[in-house]
Amino acid sequence: MAPLKIHGIAMSTCTGRVMATAFEKDAPFELQPVDLFSGAHKKPDFLALQPFGVIPVLQDENLTIFESRAIARYIANKYEGQGTPLYGETLQDKAKVDQWLEVESQNYNPPISTIVGQLVFRPMRGEPTEESVVSDNIAKLEKVLDIYEEHLAKNEYLAGDFFSLADLSHLPYTHYLINLAKKGDVITSRKHVNAWWEKISSRPSWQEVIQLASKK
Amino acid sequence: MAPLKIHGIAMSTCTGRVMATAFEKDAPFELQPVDLFSGAHKKPDFLALQPFGVIPVLQDENLTIFESRAIARYIANKYEGQGTPLYGETLQDKAKVDQWLEVESQNYNPPISTIVGQLVFRPMRGEPTEESVVSDNIAKLEKVLDIYEEHLAKNEYLAGDFFSLADLSHLPYTHYLINLAKKGDVITSRKHVNAWWEKISSRPSWQEVIQLASKK
Ligand SMILES: N[C@@H](CCC(=O)N[C@@H](CS)C(=O)NCC(=O)O)C(=O)O
Ligand SMILES: N[C@@H](CCC(=O)N[C@@H](CS)C(=O)NCC(=O)O)C(=O)O
Repeated sequence: MAPLKIHGIAMSTCTGRVMATAFEKDAPFELQPVDLFSGAHKKPDFLALQPFGVIPVLQDENLTIFESRAIARYIANKYEGQGTPLYGETLQDKAKVDQWLEVESQNYNPPISTIVGQLVFRPMRGEPTEESVVSDNIAKLEKVLDIYEEHLAKNEYLAGDFFSLADLSHLPYTHYLINLAKKGDVITSRKHVNAWWEKISSRPSWQEVIQLASKK
Repeated sequence: MAPLKIHGIAMSTCTGRVMATAFEKDAPFELQPVDLFSGAHKKPDFLALQPFGVIPVLQDENLTIFESRAIARYIANKYEGQGTPLYGETLQDKAKVDQWLEVESQNYNPPISTIVGQLVFRPMRGEPTEESVVSDNIAKLEKVLDIYEEHLAKNEYLAGDFFSLADLSHLPYTHYLINLAKKGDVITSRKHVNAWWEKISSRPSWQEVIQLASKK
């Protein structure tokens, strides 16, 4: 089987989500770099693959799909029989994974991506950080994390006692929050969230993503 | 098999997404009303089911799950062998359904829910509509709909030539946008989007949801 082709860049959060999934599933892939700085993602060739003009995009034989969480799901489904069972084992497990994947996408991602955008990406582009936007979103994220803290006091991972796509999906932005935005105290100040973070971020799959990202 | 128990209210958009799915899958369910007006969803009994304090929640035997799109996925998976095949037939179909479900959740839902919130829910609560928020989000929604228009010129439904969970997930807020916020021109002015809307909103499943909602 030909390797999956992932159009993206190793240091992008959404590409990181897809690569971590591929590593967990032992799914061979190659990264096809997209030059965001020259705006390659807004040009016709790329827009023919992804009409919204954002990375990542996956190509597998004659299938082209985008949206990082949908790509992650596809890799988990296609390689169901190998690597980590990222949806658990039963229909009930899968329901819990889907639930927490939605919580990540609906409740966790909006504030954390805004904070990282303000503290990391805007400065990279020479734009000022809007401090009130940061503090509003820190407050929102803390409310979400309070619920996680209570949940993780009773569960080893989000969907139960197994590592899943739901945990994995939190890796990229949380890594940026801690290591680049330097706002890791919202994680470390919560005992069970912190223990969960230590566990999921030390997985070989995520360490491989970090290594790839640091090369570029 | 006992019917699914859906905690929610028939006229809520997120509950509508779940009920439409149940109707498409011929899955028997009963609605357990949650009195949002008295704040029942912020009280301990409900928070034990849904820690974020929002509807809907599904209970099925000893499984409790929340997040409307996760519940919809669970119903589609559990009743895989009956009703409409909401994920299509193949792994590729499923990937396309997941992709467009993500587009709905990431790109379509944020502006449309903001517009409906401003024009329908805020006035209901006696709060003023912020016109600049409405116009900013109409502009965002139109950009998304321009991409849909091009896509639907070449595809009967979002994921291809079959009705899926991705189309279904657009029903509740689009219905509110047209019928209550009176901003349907963004749909009707786009030929292929409009034809798609006519097709999906006239399905018996959605008509049944509207009927239930109008009784309360
Ligand atoms: N919901 C999309 C978001 C994709 C996205 O925002 N990608 C970013 C990189 S993480 C991007 O391409 N940004 C460039 C731009 O917006 O111009 C996904 O999960 O794939
Ligand atoms: N992402 C959640 C959103 C749920 C949600 O926002 N529900 C609304 C009704 S559509 C609600 O309970 N609102 C009451 C409140 O926020 O207090 C889902 O899809 O289930």
